[in-house]
Amino acid sequence: MEGCLFCKIVEGEIPCAKLYEDEKILSFLDIAPANKGHALVMPKEHYETLLDVPDDIELMKVVKKVVRAMSSALGNEGFNILVNNKKVAGQLVPHLHVHIIPRFAGDGIKLNWMPKRYRDKEIEEFKEKIKSFL
Amino acid sequence: MEGCLFCKIVEGEIPCAKLYEDEKILSFLDIAPANKGHALVMPKEHYETLLDVPDDIELMKVVKKVVRAMSSALGNEGFNILVNNKKVAGQLVPHLHVHIIPRFAGDGIKLNWMPKRYRDKEIEEFKEKIKSFL
Repeated sequence: MEGCLFCKIVEGEIPCAKLYEDEKILSFLDIAPANKGHALVMPKEHYETLLDVPDDIELMKVVKKVVRAMSSALGNEGFNILVNNKKVAGQLVPHLHVHIIPRFAGDGIKLNWMPKRYRDKEIEEFKEKIKSFL
Repeated sequence: MEGCLFCKIVEGEIPCAKLYEDEKILSFLDIAPANKGHALVMPKEHYETLLDVPDDIELMKVVKKVVRAMSSALGNEGFNILVNNKKVAGQLVPHLHVHIIPRFAGDGIKLNWMPKRYRDKEIEEFKEKIKSFL
């Protein structure tokens, strides 16, 4: 898409530290990493969010492949998979991308939250509301 | 697996606010949500991380289904998908689960990080190290 940073990376107009590429998917290192080795996996075609990308673009297969290589190379004990969909969710580039963050003991990264509390029976109300669209 | 909280939910020994169930996958509301409506999607069989689950358990298809219903029901503008793999990455229950967090403007949730910096050429070294295992 015109003006999209990640489309420019796909086109080779902007360089990247490329890890993997196939017909439909590209993986490269995030230049502003949570931890060094933090990788992105994304469809080459422009889709904004996970809801827009067709199921035959098998991002998760490539994610697993990259995680395995990353863990062998870096020895990280664990990893986070994060997809921010839409600006309100922290998506900085509106071209779908999956973050793979290698994790090490004591790395200080916090991807957690202060839990909100459901009032009595309120969780049932939310369940019914969502289920009515399923 | 013996003693696993989420296996007990699958078996019906512990109740949950169930959204969706099929032969292989279960989705229900997180009781300690980042935002109300926060859902989990997981394989019914016990696998610890994303690396352990077979590809024919199509979690992402169910994730999309639940996101669509959630967004219709709650009107959230965006959503995060988060999978914490291993304790070091914040995984609290060692039974693979995908978080779906509905997001609203001004909800105060922060799933971001202070970027680390690669030294000159260091990103190339990381790239080569990981690529050597791909």
